[in-house]
Amino acid sequence: MLSHGKKLINSPDAVVTEFIEGLVETYPGLQYLDGFPEVKVVLRSDASGPTYNKVAVISGGGSGHEPTHAGFVGEGMLTAAICGDVFASPTVDAILAGIRAVTGPMGCLLIIKNYTGDRLNFGLAAEQAKSEGYMVETVIVGDDCALPPRRGIAGRRGLAGTIFVHKVAGAAAEAGLSLAAVAAEATHASEMIGTMGVALSVCTLPGQVTSDRLGPGKMELGLGIHGEPGAVVADLQPVDIVVSHVLNQILSSDTKYVPITRGDRVAVMINGLGGTPNMELMIACRSTVAKLQLEHGLAIDRVYTGSFMTSLDMAGFSISLMKTEQSVLQRLDATTKAPAWPVGADGNHISPKVPIPLPSSCLKESHELLGRPPKLSQRGLVLEAAIEAAAREIINLKDSLNEWDSKAGDGDCGSTMYKGATAILEDLKTNYPLNSAAETVNEIGNSIRRAMGGTSGIIYNILCKAAYSSLKTDNETVITARQWAEALESAISAVSKYGGASAGYRTMLDSLIPACSVLKERLDGGVDPVTAFVLSSEAALAGAEATKKMQALAGRASYILVENLISVPDPGAMAAASWYRAAALAVKDRSQDP
Amino acid sequence: MLSHGKKLINSPDAVVTEFIEGLVETYPGLQYLDGFPEVKVVLRSDASGPTYNKVAVISGGGSGHEPTHAGFVGEGMLTAAICGDVFASPTVDAILAGIRAVTGPMGCLLIIKNYTGDRLNFGLAAEQAKSEGYMVETVIVGDDCALPPRRGIAGRRGLAGTIFVHKVAGAAAEAGLSLAAVAAEATHASEMIGTMGVALSVCTLPGQVTSDRLGPGKMELGLGIHGEPGAVVADLQPVDIVVSHVLNQILSSDTKYVPITRGDRVAVMINGLGGTPNMELMIACRSTVAKLQLEHGLAIDRVYTGSFMTSLDMAGFSISLMKTEQSVLQRLDATTKAPAWPVGADGNHISPKVPIPLPSSCLKESHELLGRPPKLSQRGLVLEAAIEAAAREIINLKDSLNEWDSKAGDGDCGSTMYKGATAILEDLKTNYPLNSAAETVNEIGNSIRRAMGGTSGIIYNILCKAAYSSLKTDNETVITARQWAEALESAISAVSKYGGASAGYRTMLDSLIPACSVLKERLDGGVDPVTAFVLSSEAALAGAEATKKMQALAGRASYILVENLISVPDPGAMAAASWYRAAALAVKDRSQDP
Repeated sequence: MLSHGKKLINSPDAVVTEFIEGLVETYPGLQYLDGFPEVKVVLRSDASGPTYNKVAVISGGGSGHEPTHAGFVGEGMLTAAICGDVFASPTVDAILAGIRAVTGPMGCLLIIKNYTGDRLNFGLAAEQAKSEGYMVETVIVGDDCALPPRRGIAGRRGLAGTIFVHKVAGAAAEAGLSLAAVAAEATHASEMIGTMGVALSVCTLPGQVTSDRLGPGKMELGLGIHGEPGAVVADLQPVDIVVSHVLNQILSSDTKYVPITRGDRVAVMINGLGGTPNMELMIACRSTVAKLQLEHGLAIDRVYTGSFMTSLDMAGFSISLMKTEQSVLQRLDATTKAPAWPVGADGNHISPKVPIPLPSSCLKESHELLGRPPKLSQRGLVLEAAIEAAAREIINLKDSLNEWDSKAGDGDCGSTMYKGATAILEDLKTNYPLNSAAETVNEIGNSIRRAMGGTSGIIYNILCKAAYSSLKTDNETVITARQWAEALESAISAVSKYGGASAGYRTMLDSLIPACSVLKERLDGGVDPVTAFVLSSEAALAGAEATKKMQALAGRASYILVENLISVPDPGAMAAASWYRAAALAVKDRSQDP
Repeated sequence: MLSHGKKLINSPDAVVTEFIEGLVETYPGLQYLDGFPEVKVVLRSDASGPTYNKVAVISGGGSGHEPTHAGFVGEGMLTAAICGDVFASPTVDAILAGIRAVTGPMGCLLIIKNYTGDRLNFGLAAEQAKSEGYMVETVIVGDDCALPPRRGIAGRRGLAGTIFVHKVAGAAAEAGLSLAAVAAEATHASEMIGTMGVALSVCTLPGQVTSDRLGPGKMELGLGIHGEPGAVVADLQPVDIVVSHVLNQILSSDTKYVPITRGDRVAVMINGLGGTPNMELMIACRSTVAKLQLEHGLAIDRVYTGSFMTSLDMAGFSISLMKTEQSVLQRLDATTKAPAWPVGADGNHISPKVPIPLPSSCLKESHELLGRPPKLSQRGLVLEAAIEAAAREIINLKDSLNEWDSKAGDGDCGSTMYKGATAILEDLKTNYPLNSAAETVNEIGNSIRRAMGGTSGIIYNILCKAAYSSLKTDNETVITARQWAEALESAISAVSKYGGASAGYRTMLDSLIPACSVLKERLDGGVDPVTAFVLSSEAALAGAEATKKMQALAGRASYILVENLISVPDPGAMAAASWYRAAALAVKDRSQDP
């Protein structure tokens, strides 16, 4: 009822030609023959024509399997791809045009998927091309393992395993081998491959109605790639179970479809059918690799995961296995410029996991864990008084903060801040290395992180961490008032950057920004540090009061009109102003002490 | 009702870790930190740790957007990707673990998509890492162009355009630039990008029920990548119209979101959202390129089409535009080992179309078009008699063939063969170059191709073409009996290969194979050619008679049990035996003429 039947197309009749036009816009290395709509042939722009001095490797068939076949055109893989209409074999004339366009004196190999239409049309084109003097060889690929063997013409369908044959043949041709040698490698490869697929949905042809063949909660095992029914319909299972079944079928010792037995080495392709996201293919891949290794005793040389041979918008996947040996691996790993061949899958696996590194500050932590020093310095005592006053002020304000917040938010600002303040008071007794202001600010951040959840917790944590980074110097026992101002500025800047608010957004910054400005101004003007701190705290309060007239631009309050907020200050701004003011007054008191 | 809600997974809770395990099985160049399930970090296996001597480029965010972010890890792009749960920001601890794992003395750049959770968690991790002594810079990317500008925190969402920033930053870092320089390039890039998306379906979270928000025939314009509703719901339109709308919105002179104006150069990304097949993305690409060039007056430097930043299984796509200049192009084109960055999109476009080549035999065709020679040689006269007799025999047999066929097939074998025979008789009068047997056989194939449809037409055409290729020699005026036998053998072999049948399948081959055997035997035994031909035609007839006892293995007759076919010969076999016999008798008659 959702996406099915919906397609991003213009006209059902134009899907293949428009696909090709988009393809060549994306990949400058590809061109197409100027014969639309009858002749739909994609070829390499860097190597074609009668002077091409390597064996041309040509494949094709019905469209609807993109990126197959055109996406595999490129140096080291296909020289040309002949595209039919959706699920329909290309015409003999189109195939002939492709052969003539790219075949030089070394001849060409046609790789044909085992469908009657493809066999006959490619076959006639091959015979016609031979009669025109071209050297032509063909290999027919039937890798399907879904159906029991039967005598007769239908045989096994050509599925995603065919792409392995494209790659082997393309690499052999690129290496300069003769037509006979390329054809022999392709034929050998085709005999080493087995494929089976699972569909979660039926594909919809452009312009047609979606089949309701496959009901909810069902899957089809042993599907084809043209919307034909699968061999079996079953209840959808966890992917581990689905993969088990598919692998048992491919490797069945009854059918002996592929000559792969315990102890062999294989390459694996997990192929999405068009409507299956990458995440699910990778989950299927994980399962496939584990089962091949543990249950079937196979060594995995290469894994290719992606949507390579699709069936329009079908949801589902197929698994292809190919028996590998050194010579085959060399072909699979050979460089290719074909855009759809996966990169990064070559090379040998090392351990997939690495240990989590310890923090570089780990050694120092033992120092920090010392906590409160046995004896506080004068500065340590002042810092302690300021922290205590600030935290107690927040505790006192809890109900007011909640009340203001209930007018505009969810009413828990006071409770959340209370948790943080309580944790700070607790940790202040034993944990804070108060003689180091920088480390103490850092520890306050940690207390907040442990105690306060939500956005305000993380924002206060950012505030503390940024201040800490700024305060931390080689000689952190003597922090000047100027350094404190700079730390505040850098903390504000971090909160603004990561929180996204700035002045006038009705947040805590509307207290801290004016406080910081005044602090710096007064210090610059020669005012003594304590007085400057107190004056800046008055600016913080004034800033918090001013939020009464502001439209909220952050948080839940941003959905409420300013009229309904007038006379209510922003609780975050008020909280920040209040702890800041309390700290300033405590510093002033302490400084006046004898 | 079909695929939606169906997923190839084991457990909704394990999708991200199982995805990562599959990813590293596929790509040996990737590893992950051993911290599942909390820490989900993918990193380069070839370059990480405290000794890494380039700027580390780190990104991440909620999962469900695969291959973003982990698929973009690799030399020249991301150094690490931090994966959250589906659509949930990663934790500060996970981000920190990633930073510590890959950051060396050159520092690291965090590329953050503009979502509150990501900003705060990456922000705190950045501040924490700085406090541990790491050099850290951050860039926040918000490329969404769907919503009108508004003041406030929410701002523009980070969408697929972020991948351009990954690439630019990764290439700059790989080039050895300083952290400040890499950050500056990334920031500049982020300001050159605009993105807008269109959804045809709503994504389904693992383990959750599919939303029915989006009805049949509808699309959402201006979607996010987390299943949030789009800006506008509209009727689904042809993709050309959808693309027009999206491009107008991105390039709107009202919002001025991107500094791209007529005459500028751009890179384009057509991004699938997870459930959209490659074919449709390429069709959207074609439309996008044409409209940018013709309607917006932009020059297209690069086009990237694929599923890069998805939204689980959502059907739909987004378009991203990035203003380019030479320095940006250099970064986009720089080599990367990141598996999900598209290959083959670099380089400049040449003409996408090339003319269809003429057949290499084109010059000769004028000779062939001469048709019947003014005077027939003795051999030409014999050939003419044989062809005429064979064709007349088929015409006489029309009703019998139809009758036999009606017992097992669709009853038109006689009518179809009649068409071919009539065409041959017609062309025989004027068109066949009878003094050249090879060329005449080729022309018979052409007559058949024109007149006969269906499988039998193409199979007879293959028969003639293969015989022609075999007969054609430098001196084709004197074809020996041995050459005729070889031509028959090679024709049989081609029909068998491409048609898929062999002896005993109840087809025309059951006449021709015994005929060919006898012909060769007798010639080998020293029998004169005409006698050998006549004897072989008796074998053909006997072979056709023997099909009465065969189970069909090809064509429609293969669905009918042998019991129902007994006493009916295969009409194809009977037709082949009959024209063969008629030709042999005609040759005998002619040879006895004085």
